[in-house]
Amino acid sequence: MRIILTSLLLFVAAHTLHAQTVTRARDRGITIGVLPTGKWNAITDVPGVKVGHATLVKGDRIRTGVTAILPHDGNIFQQKVPAAIFVGNGFGKLAGSTQVAELGNLETPVVLTNTLNVATAIEAVIEYTLQQPGNESVQSVNAVIGETNDGWLNDIRSTPVRKADVLQAIQSAQSGPVAEGCVGAGTGTICFGFKGGIGTASRLLPAKLGGYTVGVLVQSNFGGVLQIAGAPVGQELGKYYLSDQLNNMVDGSCMMVVATDAPLDSRNLERLAKRAFMGLARTGGIASNGSGDYVIAFSTAGAARVPYVADQPVQTVPVLHNEFVTPLFMAAIEATEEAIINSLFAATTTIGKDGHKIEALPVERVMEILRQYGRVKGE
Amino acid sequence: MRIILTSLLLFVAAHTLHAQTVTRARDRGITIGVLPTGKWNAITDVPGVKVGHATLVKGDRIRTGVTAILPHDGNIFQQKVPAAIFVGNGFGKLAGSTQVAELGNLETPVVLTNTLNVATAIEAVIEYTLQQPGNESVQSVNAVIGETNDGWLNDIRSTPVRKADVLQAIQSAQSGPVAEGCVGAGTGTICFGFKGGIGTASRLLPAKLGGYTVGVLVQSNFGGVLQIAGAPVGQELGKYYLSDQLNNMVDGSCMMVVATDAPLDSRNLERLAKRAFMGLARTGGIASNGSGDYVIAFSTAGAARVPYVADQPVQTVPVLHNEFVTPLFMAAIEATEEAIINSLFAATTTIGKDGHKIEALPVERVMEILRQYGRVKGE
Amino acid sequence: MRIILTSLLLFVAAHTLHAQTVTRARDRGITIGVLPTGKWNAITDVPGVKVGHATLVKGDRIRTGVTAILPHDGNIFQQKVPAAIFVGNGFGKLAGSTQVAELGNLETPVVLTNTLNVATAIEAVIEYTLQQPGNESVQSVNAVIGETNDGWLNDIRSTPVRKADVLQAIQSAQSGPVAEGCVGAGTGTICFGFKGGIGTASRLLPAKLGGYTVGVLVQSNFGGVLQIAGAPVGQELGKYYLSDQLNNMVDGSCMMVVATDAPLDSRNLERLAKRAFMGLARTGGIASNGSGDYVIAFSTAGAARVPYVADQPVQTVPVLHNEFVTPLFMAAIEATEEAIINSLFAATTTIGKDGHKIEALPVERVMEILRQYGRVKGE
Amino acid sequence: MRIILTSLLLFVAAHTLHAQTVTRARDRGITIGVLPTGKWNAITDVPGVKVGHATLVKGDRIRTGVTAILPHDGNIFQQKVPAAIFVGNGFGKLAGSTQVAELGNLETPVVLTNTLNVATAIEAVIEYTLQQPGNESVQSVNAVIGETNDGWLNDIRSTPVRKADVLQAIQSAQSGPVAEGCVGAGTGTICFGFKGGIGTASRLLPAKLGGYTVGVLVQSNFGGVLQIAGAPVGQELGKYYLSDQLNNMVDGSCMMVVATDAPLDSRNLERLAKRAFMGLARTGGIASNGSGDYVIAFSTAGAARVPYVADQPVQTVPVLHNEFVTPLFMAAIEATEEAIINSLFAATTTIGKDGHKIEALPVERVMEILRQYGRVKGE
Repeated sequence: MRIILTSLLLFVAAHTLHAQTVTRARDRGITIGVLPTGKWNAITDVPGVKVGHATLVKGDRIRTGVTAILPHDGNIFQQKVPAAIFVGNGFGKLAGSTQVAELGNLETPVVLTNTLNVATAIEAVIEYTLQQPGNESVQSVNAVIGETNDGWLNDIRSTPVRKADVLQAIQSAQSGPVAEGCVGAGTGTICFGFKGGIGTASRLLPAKLGGYTVGVLVQSNFGGVLQIAGAPVGQELGKYYLSDQLNNMVDGSCMMVVATDAPLDSRNLERLAKRAFMGLARTGGIASNGSGDYVIAFSTAGAARVPYVADQPVQTVPVLHNEFVTPLFMAAIEATEEAIINSLFAATTTIGKDGHKIEALPVERVMEILRQYGRVKGE
Repeated sequence: MRIILTSLLLFVAAHTLHAQTVTRARDRGITIGVLPTGKWNAITDVPGVKVGHATLVKGDRIRTGVTAILPHDGNIFQQKVPAAIFVGNGFGKLAGSTQVAELGNLETPVVLTNTLNVATAIEAVIEYTLQQPGNESVQSVNAVIGETNDGWLNDIRSTPVRKADVLQAIQSAQSGPVAEGCVGAGTGTICFGFKGGIGTASRLLPAKLGGYTVGVLVQSNFGGVLQIAGAPVGQELGKYYLSDQLNNMVDGSCMMVVATDAPLDSRNLERLAKRAFMGLARTGGIASNGSGDYVIAFSTAGAARVPYVADQPVQTVPVLHNEFVTPLFMAAIEATEEAIINSLFAATTTIGKDGHKIEALPVERVMEILRQYGRVKGE
Repeated sequence: MRIILTSLLLFVAAHTLHAQTVTRARDRGITIGVLPTGKWNAITDVPGVKVGHATLVKGDRIRTGVTAILPHDGNIFQQKVPAAIFVGNGFGKLAGSTQVAELGNLETPVVLTNTLNVATAIEAVIEYTLQQPGNESVQSVNAVIGETNDGWLNDIRSTPVRKADVLQAIQSAQSGPVAEGCVGAGTGTICFGFKGGIGTASRLLPAKLGGYTVGVLVQSNFGGVLQIAGAPVGQELGKYYLSDQLNNMVDGSCMMVVATDAPLDSRNLERLAKRAFMGLARTGGIASNGSGDYVIAFSTAGAARVPYVADQPVQTVPVLHNEFVTPLFMAAIEATEEAIINSLFAATTTIGKDGHKIEALPVERVMEILRQYGRVKGE
Repeated sequence: MRIILTSLLLFVAAHTLHAQTVTRARDRGITIGVLPTGKWNAITDVPGVKVGHATLVKGDRIRTGVTAILPHDGNIFQQKVPAAIFVGNGFGKLAGSTQVAELGNLETPVVLTNTLNVATAIEAVIEYTLQQPGNESVQSVNAVIGETNDGWLNDIRSTPVRKADVLQAIQSAQSGPVAEGCVGAGTGTICFGFKGGIGTASRLLPAKLGGYTVGVLVQSNFGGVLQIAGAPVGQELGKYYLSDQLNNMVDGSCMMVVATDAPLDSRNLERLAKRAFMGLARTGGIASNGSGDYVIAFSTAGAARVPYVADQPVQTVPVLHNEFVTPLFMAAIEATEEAIINSLFAATTTIGKDGHKIEALPVERVMEILRQYGRVKGE
């Protein structure tokens, strides 16, 4: 049965991957921000970063999944990466935040899932880490797990995610294009009243500013007053927080993961993380009371890695001087904004638990609105 | 000479007040957000809140000033107000933040000025407080002073603000319409490459959501990629961070003051303050490395006041339940966005130190852009 | 087998409870601090607070367990309590911290266990909460789980704790005397090189200071230079951080839970929590790099409870004025110091995984040292 | 008159310096902690660190002053040092904290003075910095100023400190022995009901642990239950918080400055700073509601300095790996504890404003108590 499920998952992933190629915002002529994107316009543009999904669509009631982000190919526990977490709004169950803040690094893949399956993901990440060659004597693992609540579409109280699903997401992680929309941890999420999901984007700084890449991946599940490239899409569609149509369906959350190859220490990574939250604001998100809006930022810069076992007490590490971080800040804002919009463009109408149905963003209608507001390039 | 100067200041203030009535964004048909404004669309819509300015325009080199915000009419030290501070980006010299965080209240007017005159403002606020009737035995005063750096237009190294200027701003504070633009602490500031300054706005919640008011006042002095009501004004004008025209003139800061009559405790006021930072993001601000972006939020709710001398250990206070804060969050986002735009609309071209000239936002050209992007109502 | 195990657990608990009555520091004439204790000198002196343990001693390799602290008798999710968390040193896997910080309350029992079983405890607490009458529609639960690493004595990589163990600790929680030492989450811990474990203590303020109780429970698993009531016990025994005997066996952690019936809001509870960390310092703890030192503080004051479903937006709540919190601060410091010492007095020599043996504190030798340093009353 | 005053100040300083040599705790056989001290047992044992005082004793009512700590000999603004601030209890007016937290560095001398003269010190430090050769174009200076409230002995409302006093403290700073007790910012402070003041101490790590020095300087002005080397001195003297004699004279504050030559980044400096607060706890301090307990920590490690103008974006800096910081933590705890005790031993009975008299710690009586409790070595 596991084999069958895996096949199904692969099918879903492949399907979505295909779907995505025709629906990304930028492919439709929508430009967000002023900086150029990386090759894939994805978090995987940061060299070494990989993403994997496990998508759980089972029967009428299960619409959930797992998304894993790996900062590099090696043994992450042995070669930790500088990292930081910013809490935009803390109504969430993020695991691992205090250790990241204290030690300034990340020692596991980042895993995203649903609210009530955080424990499952912790268990899986611990098992994954304990069993990696070289970690035989490890007795402490700080699993970093994010979540949003997909309980409208998904039978979340049944905690359907299994350890195997988490491990599958980790093990299937790859570089290159990233499946977006109703995949992995985005399978059952809702964003601005429409079907949300996974989205990603990136920015590439010009060589004179360091040539660094900033990549972002989001699990979108929040509300507010949707704005796309500045156009008041939510208002035009009559669907926004406090509107008659949507009323107060605003709670939810947004997990944001920011990767960069710039040599930032944990202090500047925390500042970078905070800018992702500014990107969320630009989409019309309001970080409502019930939202768990978290940003996890890490640097993949090779020489900045933190060895588990230090061969000598003092490391010599590259750090970008404060004066040069601003372009990275702008990149994080732009990439987050676009990643959220990408999640909406890629997601498809979904019917789940108790017949609940969440419509996809009506992309063609949205394109009309964007044209009306002058936000479609080349038209 | 002081008398003459005071007259000049009053003249300038009156003039600006007049000017403002024709230039506010909303009066031009620009709508930001979905919530209605208060009567004056100003921080003074929150009952009891008063604002005063001292504007220093002297000779060729002095372009600076002071703006004071008073939470209520009484003795603030004796009747403190619940308060919180959020640090968006901490490259700034804000005075008083740790005590506000620890004790959860504000015991002085909030004063804004230039970076190198923070000490002058502290001295004045202490003097003001010590001399108030009832404060004869007070020996400790936590002055909350914000600043931004107006050193491009103003001879900031000469620290031109005097205690008397600060006291004048406090003593001239009034309710009703608030002068915006090149007044008070906004006299010499720059925002998105254009002349910035003081701006204000407010939102009024419907009765069923509590009927509360949220008012915001900003001292705008920062950069990024200007966006007005979602329209890409900075790009259309070719003037934005990393553009040829502006290059990296991005540093600066934004002080934001948020007032509300909703009975929020300091924890929820900190959350409210964080939303103002989201409003800044919506204007295209990027919180650059060199920016001091701070939000000071306070509640004027009468029964929530914190007496200096408690007549009994346990106070019974009204607090809004977490579940009802989201509309206030949206109000703070919208009002901050609009306050920043108002600061740009009201400010006028200014020539200062060393002949430096900063153009006002070209409002008519901006209106064209906004029309082009469908953002002017009724046209 | 579960039945047999449960019997064993109850036997162990009962035995320890008995043992404790003869070994508590205060019963030996050792006085810590200047304030009087509550009736049981335990966290359970705070009315309504209950503590339960599940002790896992299985074969040669399992020495671990679970301790649960319940703030009140009712449905905690429906009647949340004001709460805060202070991170002394964040090398730990505490679950639930960001939501407590954001919302200012606690909605589950606090559960302590070992580092690699945090996920198990989360699952159990979620299950416990979802299944409570009245919580049928709940889809989000913020389980607060603390841990320390008992991997020297316990086969921690086998994650031996089961959900049933956690539920048993919760369901067996009771008021009155609390079993200390090698019970529950303290079964396998090490403190100052000796066997650590669970410890508890309390302080009762005089009526003129409010008559409030502060109770503390700790899971001690850390190092430094042991000091008991100020006497240099670690040095006299030649066993302390950097000493030849102990070298750098210093890492570990200390979980501290502070309860009070004083009506403190979350801001003042965070301050109270910070004082528990000061109590740890007074025992000679140094919060080493590898230590996860966390304090969870909550108030049981009835009228301060936070209903899940608010019947009206504005609650009227009692809050202790800042000026009256200092006696509570001192109480938290004293009770934490004594709780840690109690954990050492109650713990017994333990042999665990791989034949590792950790000696109990040599109480009689310690009493000699304390006499030598004039710290035993009535002798 | 200034000249006369300066002479007086120098006389006072010299006198106190002399006095100190016979009264330091360690010279009386009292050992605090287990690590050895540096040469001077002072913050100046950290190479490059200098301390200067300006002591203001004027007429019957002025008992205050200024203490300056310089991290190195050069232009601090041009060669900033990694730094962090920990807020133990934030009822204080510390200036400069948010920028230190954001940028991770210190760009001025640290200056300590009284509560109502913080602004004077800011002005002086700005003037000092603007006028240093090389700083001609500087327009923004983050002065870090700490304070405690000496208003019982000093006519604090008259704000007697002048800019010249601050500049004198900075300019007279020197390495070598540091005057303690009633000097500089410690002239009018009260600690545990006795005369407090300036105190300093240091620890030197063995070569195998890096050979680093940690030096601490305190301005002691707080209360609690005095404990010296673990002995209950406050209780024996009947003078402690809530005792009949002292009642609630507990408020005040403690400024702590920690210097090290270990290459710690700002994250680990914040952790180091937190340990100084643990040292305060060990003296019996309770961080009362009204206390402003702050720790400023910085690293003088040459290669870790942060240039104002970076010649290239990426700096290569030495950083001590997390695994090696624990000995530094212990050093900071011990040195802070001893610095506070030193401040008490050095301070002398002082009569000030309104005839208020604060007795010095009765050192000979204290020595008896310490002997009684076995805490005097070699006796």
